[in-house]
Amino acid sequence: MFFTQKPKRIFLDYASTTPTSREVVKQMEKYQSEVFANPSALYSEALVAKEAVKESREKVADIMNCRSNEIIWTSGGTEGNNLALLGVFEAHKSETFQPHFVTSVIEHPAILEVFKEIEKRGGEVTYVSVGAPGIVSYKAIQNSLKSNTVLVSITYASNEIGTVQPIREIGRVIKEYRAKNSTPLPYFHTDACQASLYLSLDVLKLGVDMMTLDGIKMYGPKGFGMLFVKNNTKIHSIHFGGGQEKGLRSGTENVPGIVGFTKALEIADSLKDSESARLQKIRDYGIEKILKNFSKAQLNGSQDYRLPNNINICFDGLDAEFAVIALDVAGVSASYSSSCQTLKEDSSSYVVESLGRADCKLSSLRFTLGRESKISDIDFLLIALKKIIKAVVPSILAAS
Amino acid sequence: MFFTQKPKRIFLDYASTTPTSREVVKQMEKYQSEVFANPSALYSEALVAKEAVKESREKVADIMNCRSNEIIWTSGGTEGNNLALLGVFEAHKSETFQPHFVTSVIEHPAILEVFKEIEKRGGEVTYVSVGAPGIVSYKAIQNSLKSNTVLVSITYASNEIGTVQPIREIGRVIKEYRAKNSTPLPYFHTDACQASLYLSLDVLKLGVDMMTLDGIKMYGPKGFGMLFVKNNTKIHSIHFGGGQEKGLRSGTENVPGIVGFTKALEIADSLKDSESARLQKIRDYGIEKILKNFSKAQLNGSQDYRLPNNINICFDGLDAEFAVIALDVAGVSASYSSSCQTLKEDSSSYVVESLGRADCKLSSLRFTLGRESKISDIDFLLIALKKIIKAVVPSILAAS
Repeated sequence: MFFTQKPKRIFLDYASTTPTSREVVKQMEKYQSEVFANPSALYSEALVAKEAVKESREKVADIMNCRSNEIIWTSGGTEGNNLALLGVFEAHKSETFQPHFVTSVIEHPAILEVFKEIEKRGGEVTYVSVGAPGIVSYKAIQNSLKSNTVLVSITYASNEIGTVQPIREIGRVIKEYRAKNSTPLPYFHTDACQASLYLSLDVLKLGVDMMTLDGIKMYGPKGFGMLFVKNNTKIHSIHFGGGQEKGLRSGTENVPGIVGFTKALEIADSLKDSESARLQKIRDYGIEKILKNFSKAQLNGSQDYRLPNNINICFDGLDAEFAVIALDVAGVSASYSSSCQTLKEDSSSYVVESLGRADCKLSSLRFTLGRESKISDIDFLLIALKKIIKAVVPSILAAS
Repeated sequence: MFFTQKPKRIFLDYASTTPTSREVVKQMEKYQSEVFANPSALYSEALVAKEAVKESREKVADIMNCRSNEIIWTSGGTEGNNLALLGVFEAHKSETFQPHFVTSVIEHPAILEVFKEIEKRGGEVTYVSVGAPGIVSYKAIQNSLKSNTVLVSITYASNEIGTVQPIREIGRVIKEYRAKNSTPLPYFHTDACQASLYLSLDVLKLGVDMMTLDGIKMYGPKGFGMLFVKNNTKIHSIHFGGGQEKGLRSGTENVPGIVGFTKALEIADSLKDSESARLQKIRDYGIEKILKNFSKAQLNGSQDYRLPNNINICFDGLDAEFAVIALDVAGVSASYSSSCQTLKEDSSSYVVESLGRADCKLSSLRFTLGRESKISDIDFLLIALKKIIKAVVPSILAAS
C-alpha cells in the first residue's frame, strides 16, 4: 500500500461557486427520502412537507424584511433573473407600448443575455456605463428614466470585480420618479447573488421590488435559488403548468432545496458581520501585497465600495488564461473574467474592459475568498504568482 | 417517558412523487460539499466536476440510445416540457408563419398550460380527444397533421389514469408524413415522466425527437430532470445567460443533481422488468378486489394498456376529495385527479371527464404503487375504503 501526501491546494474562486455547507446537506436529507411527499397533495405526509415550505418562507421573509408570499423559489440565479426581466417585459409589452429597461454594462451574462433576448422581442434597453471605479452612478440611472421605462436592473455587487453598487440611492431616485409621475413604474430589480453573504438583504431599506438570490453562491443547495417579487408587481410567468408559487413558477416544489436554501440563508445572516470583517482583512492584505510585489499591477474597480471577498487585479502584459492554468498547477484555483464567461467565444472580460483599460481585459485575475480562506492563503498565492510571472513577464516583478 | 406505537400508514401516491432513493442521496453527497466546483472553471477541481457531468451524460445516453450531447439538464418535468413546447414555438413563429401543434385532451397541466400560453402568443393547437379506454389514436394524430404543424406532443403514460399511449405508432406516422412531404417537421415530443420507471426509454425505437424526464417521479433528485433533444432540432432557449447546455439552458450545472439523476435512471433501468411484473400483479389484484367489493365501481381507462403501478377507479356517487381526507385519517395516502390539479380553481379531473362519464370527474380515486408496495397494502386499503364508503355511500357496497 502506498501513501502519497496530497499536494496543498488553495481555493480562491468562491465567487464562482461555494460548497454546500454540511449543515445544509444534513437539513436537506430528511426531505429527500423521508418527508418526501408532494406539498400539493392532501394527506398527512404532504402536510408535513407543506408546513416545512411555509416555515422556510417565513424564515427567509424575516431575514429579507418582506412578506412570506413574496418569495418565489427558483432553480437558481439564472432562472430568477430570467423570470424578473422577461416576466416584466411580457407583462407590459403590447402592440402600442414598447417597454424600456435600464441596466449597466457590467452585469452578469444572466442579465445581459436576457436583455439581448428582450431587444430581439422588441424591447428597448439602455446600458449605463461605469467609470474606472466600476460603480454605476445613480444620477446616470435617474437620467435614463423615460415614460416607457418598466424596469431598472442593477446588480448589487459585481461578480467579477466585486464593486458594490449604490442600490439604496438608485432605489430612492426610482421612488422619487414614480411619486413625481404618479406611476407604479419603473420597478427596480437587483441581482444579489454575489452580495448575499456580505451585504444587507433588507428589501425595504434597499427599495427594491425584485431581488435574485442563488444557493450556490451562499453555501446553499446547487440548482436552487429564489426571486423576491414584491406584491402587486405586474409580472408574467416564464414556466407554465401546475400553478405553484402563485402561478409564477410552476413545477412541484423542491422541498429539500427550500429547507436547504433557508438554512444557508440563516447561517449567512448570522455570519455576515464577522465574516465580512475577517475577509476584508485578508482581502486588503492580499491587495497590498500584490500591488507591492508587481509593478504596474492595478486593482480593478474601487477598493472602498467592494465586496470583502474580492481581489481582481490587472497584471500588465500577463496572459490571464495561461496564468489560471499555471496557478492550478501550482495549487491555486483562481479565475480570469468569470466562469460563466469562459463558455463564450470571446472569454475576455467585458467588465474589466468597461473600466477603461482595454489591455486589462486579457490580463486580469480574480481571487475570491470564502469561509475556508486564511491570511496564509495569500502568502501561498504570492509565491505561486511570483514564480509564474517571473517565467512569463519578469519585467513586472517589482525590485525587492 | 412515553412510547406510542406509530400508526400504520400505506403510501399509494407514487405518481405524485417518489422518495429520493438512499443510493441516489449518497451519490449526490460527494458533489455538494466536496467536489463542489463550477464545471465551467479551468482548474483541477472544476475538471473533476466536468468529468462527472460528462460521464453522467454518457450513462444516460446509453440507456436512452441517444448521443450524450442530446441531453439537456433541467430543473424538472415542468421546465423540460416548457422548453420543448415554447422552445419549438419561438424558433418557428414569424410574421408570416403560424406554428400549429397537436396534443391530446388528457395531458398534464405542464403540457396543457404551456399550450394555452402558445395560443396566447399566436400559435394554433389541436387537442385530440380520447375514448373511454383513454388511449390517443395514432390515426387521429395522423389526420391532424397540416403543412404548418411543427410539433406533436403526446404523453407517454397518463399521470392520472396511467394509460400508455401508442408512442411508436405515432412516431411512425409522423415519420411517414415527414418523408412523404420532404420536411423535417413536425417534431415529436413525449412527456415520459410517468413512464420512466416502467417503459422503454429507447428514443430511436420510440421515434421521438424530444422526451421529458423528471427526477421526482423516478426516485431521483427533487428539482431536477432532463430533456432529450435530438441533434438538429430547431429550438430556442427559454433561459438566457452563461450559455450552458449548448446555449439551450443557461445556469451553472447542478452537478449533484446530474449524478443523482443518472444513478436513479441506472437503478430504474435495472429494476424495470422485475418491478413492472411485480407491481402489475399487485395492481391487478387491487383492481379485481375493488371492482368485486363495490358495485358500479369502474376502472378509468384501459387495463391492458396501462402502467403497472396505476389504479384509478370511479366510485359512483362518492365525493373523492372527502374520500382522500378520510383515507388519510385511516392511514392511506391517495389522491383524486392529480396533486398538480389540486392547486387549480376547479380541481376535478378533466382527464377522467374526457373518458365520457362526466359524473366520474368528482368521484374517482387514484392509487399508485411503488417500490415499497405489497399485496397486503391492497388489503389494508380495502378495509379503509369499505369503512368510508359504508359511512357515506352505502348503496355502492356490493353484497358479500
